[in-house]
Amino acid sequence: MLLIGCFPGSLSINVPFFTVPLARAHGKSFAHRSDLRQAKRILVKLGSAVVTRGDECGLALGRLASIVEQVAMLQNQGREMMIVTSGAVAFGKQRLRHEILLSQSVRQALHSGQNQLKDMSLPVLEARACAAAGQSGLMALYEAMFTQYSTCTAQILVTNLDFHDDQKRRNLNSTLHELLRMNIVPIINTNDAVVPPPEPNSDLQGVISIKDNDSLAARLAVEMRADLLIALSDVEGLYDSPPGSDDAKLLDTFYPGDQHSITYGTKSRVGIGGMEAKAMFNKLQVKAALWALQGGTSVVIANGTHPKVTGHVITDIVEGKKVGTFFSEVKPAGPTVEQQTEMARSAGRTLASLEPEQRSEIICALADLLTERKDEILSANKKDMEHAVSTGRLSPAMLKRLSLSSSKLNSLSIGLRQIAVSSQDSVGRVLRRTRVANNLELEQITVPIGVLLVIFESRPDCLPQVSALAIASGNALLLKGGKEAANTNRILHELAQEALSIHGVKDAIQLVSTREEVEDLCRLEKMIDLIIPRGSSQLVRDIQRAAKGIPVLGHSEGICHVYVDHEASVDKAIKIIRDSKCDYPAACNAMETLLVHRELLRTPLFDQIIDMLRTEHVKIHAGPKFASYLTFSPSEVKSLRTEYGDLECCIEVVDSMTEAVDHIHKYGSSHTDVIVTENEDTAEQFLQQLDSACVFWNASSRFADGYRFGLGAEVGISTARIHARGPVGLDGLLTTKWVLRGEGHTAADFSEQGSMTYLHENLPVAQVLPGRRTTS
Amino acid sequence: MLLIGCFPGSLSINVPFFTVPLARAHGKSFAHRSDLRQAKRILVKLGSAVVTRGDECGLALGRLASIVEQVAMLQNQGREMMIVTSGAVAFGKQRLRHEILLSQSVRQALHSGQNQLKDMSLPVLEARACAAAGQSGLMALYEAMFTQYSTCTAQILVTNLDFHDDQKRRNLNSTLHELLRMNIVPIINTNDAVVPPPEPNSDLQGVISIKDNDSLAARLAVEMRADLLIALSDVEGLYDSPPGSDDAKLLDTFYPGDQHSITYGTKSRVGIGGMEAKAMFNKLQVKAALWALQGGTSVVIANGTHPKVTGHVITDIVEGKKVGTFFSEVKPAGPTVEQQTEMARSAGRTLASLEPEQRSEIICALADLLTERKDEILSANKKDMEHAVSTGRLSPAMLKRLSLSSSKLNSLSIGLRQIAVSSQDSVGRVLRRTRVANNLELEQITVPIGVLLVIFESRPDCLPQVSALAIASGNALLLKGGKEAANTNRILHELAQEALSIHGVKDAIQLVSTREEVEDLCRLEKMIDLIIPRGSSQLVRDIQRAAKGIPVLGHSEGICHVYVDHEASVDKAIKIIRDSKCDYPAACNAMETLLVHRELLRTPLFDQIIDMLRTEHVKIHAGPKFASYLTFSPSEVKSLRTEYGDLECCIEVVDSMTEAVDHIHKYGSSHTDVIVTENEDTAEQFLQQLDSACVFWNASSRFADGYRFGLGAEVGISTARIHARGPVGLDGLLTTKWVLRGEGHTAADFSEQGSMTYLHENLPVAQVLPGRRTTS
Repeated sequence: MLLIGCFPGSLSINVPFFTVPLARAHGKSFAHRSDLRQAKRILVKLGSAVVTRGDECGLALGRLASIVEQVAMLQNQGREMMIVTSGAVAFGKQRLRHEILLSQSVRQALHSGQNQLKDMSLPVLEARACAAAGQSGLMALYEAMFTQYSTCTAQILVTNLDFHDDQKRRNLNSTLHELLRMNIVPIINTNDAVVPPPEPNSDLQGVISIKDNDSLAARLAVEMRADLLIALSDVEGLYDSPPGSDDAKLLDTFYPGDQHSITYGTKSRVGIGGMEAKAMFNKLQVKAALWALQGGTSVVIANGTHPKVTGHVITDIVEGKKVGTFFSEVKPAGPTVEQQTEMARSAGRTLASLEPEQRSEIICALADLLTERKDEILSANKKDMEHAVSTGRLSPAMLKRLSLSSSKLNSLSIGLRQIAVSSQDSVGRVLRRTRVANNLELEQITVPIGVLLVIFESRPDCLPQVSALAIASGNALLLKGGKEAANTNRILHELAQEALSIHGVKDAIQLVSTREEVEDLCRLEKMIDLIIPRGSSQLVRDIQRAAKGIPVLGHSEGICHVYVDHEASVDKAIKIIRDSKCDYPAACNAMETLLVHRELLRTPLFDQIIDMLRTEHVKIHAGPKFASYLTFSPSEVKSLRTEYGDLECCIEVVDSMTEAVDHIHKYGSSHTDVIVTENEDTAEQFLQQLDSACVFWNASSRFADGYRFGLGAEVGISTARIHARGPVGLDGLLTTKWVLRGEGHTAADFSEQGSMTYLHENLPVAQVLPGRRTTS
Repeated sequence: MLLIGCFPGSLSINVPFFTVPLARAHGKSFAHRSDLRQAKRILVKLGSAVVTRGDECGLALGRLASIVEQVAMLQNQGREMMIVTSGAVAFGKQRLRHEILLSQSVRQALHSGQNQLKDMSLPVLEARACAAAGQSGLMALYEAMFTQYSTCTAQILVTNLDFHDDQKRRNLNSTLHELLRMNIVPIINTNDAVVPPPEPNSDLQGVISIKDNDSLAARLAVEMRADLLIALSDVEGLYDSPPGSDDAKLLDTFYPGDQHSITYGTKSRVGIGGMEAKAMFNKLQVKAALWALQGGTSVVIANGTHPKVTGHVITDIVEGKKVGTFFSEVKPAGPTVEQQTEMARSAGRTLASLEPEQRSEIICALADLLTERKDEILSANKKDMEHAVSTGRLSPAMLKRLSLSSSKLNSLSIGLRQIAVSSQDSVGRVLRRTRVANNLELEQITVPIGVLLVIFESRPDCLPQVSALAIASGNALLLKGGKEAANTNRILHELAQEALSIHGVKDAIQLVSTREEVEDLCRLEKMIDLIIPRGSSQLVRDIQRAAKGIPVLGHSEGICHVYVDHEASVDKAIKIIRDSKCDYPAACNAMETLLVHRELLRTPLFDQIIDMLRTEHVKIHAGPKFASYLTFSPSEVKSLRTEYGDLECCIEVVDSMTEAVDHIHKYGSSHTDVIVTENEDTAEQFLQQLDSACVFWNASSRFADGYRFGLGAEVGISTARIHARGPVGLDGLLTTKWVLRGEGHTAADFSEQGSMTYLHENLPVAQVLPGRRTTS
């Protein structure tokens, strides 16, 4: 039997308030957020989420409506929803004020002849009276709102006495069960009109019912064996230290064993009296949550007042997203993803300070492990393959990408050794040296970016490659692989950590649990410096959308063009078009639109191109101008901005090279574009004028690739305009820092009265291979 | 007399529907969005904004509540608000369905004994009956909601006949005026129950009242002489071509003279029948808007259903923000900002293709003009200064920044010539050359980023500097200066365009009107490639928040540290601390926290530091550890992350250099951090381990500056980790592109069956000065 929570007012704090034997309760207490999706019976507690604060205290209607919408939606999914509401006091306060104003105005009018409604002072209203006045209006509002979703509601008013009496409790229990059975949403409130008066000096702004509601909700959740209690409040959740202090972090998950570490934040925006009440309220809320958890109900405390998320806070919680603080009884074995990120950053700093040879040794060790421990890897991969085959959820192409073989591991190993070589002069390379003044020397050197998050789909061979690139560039790395390759990724990550251990930086690479949602990872704004998605363009788009505030390296679109000039060579044109379109149509550097100079129409070259495309089974769509030249045209394109990613392409006619450039600027994605011509002047103009990451003359668009460009391993292809553009190699994982060494120099020394002058003399940097010193 | 708009159904489309003489109307028709802030009488038309679509047609409660909240807020500001509502049909439909279900279920139960409410099919409901059933509930909902804001509402039901009869119209008019006088919000709807039945096959989902409501709202707006009609719909506004097509652009402002260019989009997500109705609805809405405009009421058509903006769409419109399409009678003389951006991009491409010498000539020409046309510039600046002094809104420091002088112009001119020199090898510089295979050569060259948006406050000398940097790097430029420098900026911009004209690229630099909101500019996602804010850290923060999807170059915080090691030289420590804190305390590179090695406490050095800070009037705050060492400590810091930006600093004690590094990593902003020590090993470890953009040894933090670093002109200081870091010069305005020249090479040539192999041979790049080839 546990004793937590209380009613405020005249009831003593320490009276055990509820006597339901906990063993009897059997709501599901879930161990992970993702389990919440199974919750069938959900109790939503609307605390300050439906009350506005400030001078004009009333209901937050928009929030209330959003909450009703979400509850109705979940109910329509077949879940049993219950609401413990606040707001009767707030609703009634508005109504009573109006009444008082009216009666006052009559009195004033009699006395002074004035009728200035707005300037009149208002008396303090008694909360219980407000509650009584507001309850009917509030219920009418709920009913009107739920009617919109064809959902029926029922009103339940209770007091704490109802819980003390076993018979009454059983009555309440069976009433609620009956309502739920009939798909009716019970809306439960404390019967404030009959409870004792609030203590003087306590916060009157609706807190009276909020305080009750925390323990009431916890009680009901346990009594009704709810699977999940969602307690909406106006705080984000639980923090590990007072919110607002330098170190305060929102706890994503809270384990009761950690209870000693809770600090109850005081909220400065409520006045002094309010602060204390507020601190107590938070404490009560936490205690109620813990009590519910022990009674077998999972609890999430979240902010229901945040404008950006209110519209989906409840559904997000039920979908398992990381909103607010989740109370769980089971502490997972491993560290949280935030802890993993901290560990990675710390070990990454050590990794960056190693000698280049040491980083190279780690990569070679990993290369060795890939072949030495081949059997373990392949057996883990076999498990994943078998599971994938048995569930049948992967396409043959995906299965092929998932599968590893002895020869794949060998070539992976060879690739890693190449990265090891190129890692030798990546970090700490001096790019610029300047003598600013006598004995004041400036260097710009390459340094790692920090913590990378790489999100990759099915292909497990991505893991050692990306790990090697991160090690070579001295970056910490968080890896998030697909569920389908979980076993393979686990062993590969173990090997990477084993290799890192030889120089004591095991933690620099972390594998994130498959339970973590990509969207949640993208929100770790201050912890991750760069996100690199490796997978479908859909994955990239999703991540670009989710990653607010963290740069994403990659491209979401590859609308590549091949322009065939009227002075093109027949052979080259045919070869390049075939290769650009057919070599690997799903690649981002495959041709999507073929631009043809108008003079080529009705020439043998044009017929040969069409014949070749037909032979290769390429489906042709006609651009509007091309269609207008034909008697019988292929289907017209819906948009000239289409990325087919298949054996399909669009053909459009242009009058000149300049028009081709204009077309590409307008409809292209600045990825890779090609001109086929024998006229060097035309070609050079095209190469100069066209503003794409890669511009090619008489070469297939398929060369746009880090390996083919000779960059060694490739991080991806970027169509961003800053940092890195086109195929990105190791350099894309580096940034720079400026190191200045002086002898007590100050800016004042260089002022008009000062003794020094700037020299700004460029000094030679250490010799590097030509072409190796590149911009990142 | 103008004839537009109609009632649907049996009324003929071409009957003139309203006879109020337009000359009589005198609502304000505003010429610019910013004028909307003056609107006193506002009519809000809720079209599809309050109706949900899909199978379960009902009210969108969250949106309705948000709208009520905004209307109540505006009303409390003293504006006269009216609402033309939809939703009675939708509200009634839910209610009638429920009734029908109940009656059916009884019947079915009698027949089959079943009681499965959910599976029953629903009959099509007659819209007029729905309207009648829904009207009372809808009004009750409005009343309950407005009560929350202490706002009283009144219900008005009208039919078109009420407008045809002069007496009735006068009655309506005076009723509405009386309501507005009493601060009551009239809620107006068509009396659907008594109108003729809707045509068969037309869209039943509430469209009947929506169609009426457009002309009804326009009529009422003119009749009531409203200043502004806000028509909320489920479309973003007017497009210049069918929405969804490749070229469709939302019109920000629509001038009736442009009417021929309207294309009425069909909305594919509504079925075939719905499409036609929808097209008609859009047309009607536009016609109603035009009619209201001619009657003297400004109109904004906007989307009221967009989840992200619904909560503030009405208040945003009234604040003059660019939401939806604004109907204006006055076409401004100049191009819109979107057109300016297009012009700049196009001219910028030509600028980028000029020879380096030509760009250099333009900059020199601008430098000449600054001195030649000095008188014009100074007289424009005098106007700005006089205006600023007379309004008294600028602080003395701001006034000083605003003021130009002959000598300021001279040094500006000298600076520009330096930029002209450095521009010679910026664009088109070869960074890397690789022989990929025989006759297949790859080059990586520098190219401009594209279109820059530079937002700067008061200092007008920023304009020529930034212009010169943009010209030197071949970028197009949009300039947005402060209102206080409008005259000076105008003449300086004219001179920049004059200089650009010598090579025919006048439009590459555009000055954005002071009327444009920074926030709106930050939304031009696909048109602007990089935003550079130059001004206070507050400006930078605001822009970083507003610029979704466009990278922002800059830093919002400069929390710089000076760490004084126990082996520091006394003289150097005193000099460096004084310079770092006192040289210019408001600068981002000024010291905010002084970290002192514990062994220094109670040494003469420490006393000297404190004495110096006192002499310089620096207010000292104590970090928690420092405070614990003192008997009487200065006030303790609230946060170790404070940027004072004034003669204030925090002092904290650390046990070692390593602890200093940890402290800076935890509380710093990675801007600039300094170690003062005579121990070279300690210094080198600090420089190596500390992960900030600038790390200094025995030099003042104030050296973190582009000019002092010898980069020539400075774009700003970046604390981002990608692209550019630390002080950013010309290189920060460049990106790269990859140029590949082949002879018909294809990827297939290099396959296992192919005839070619990769060489990946690094080729020498053209000689550049040592240290000049830098990463960007």
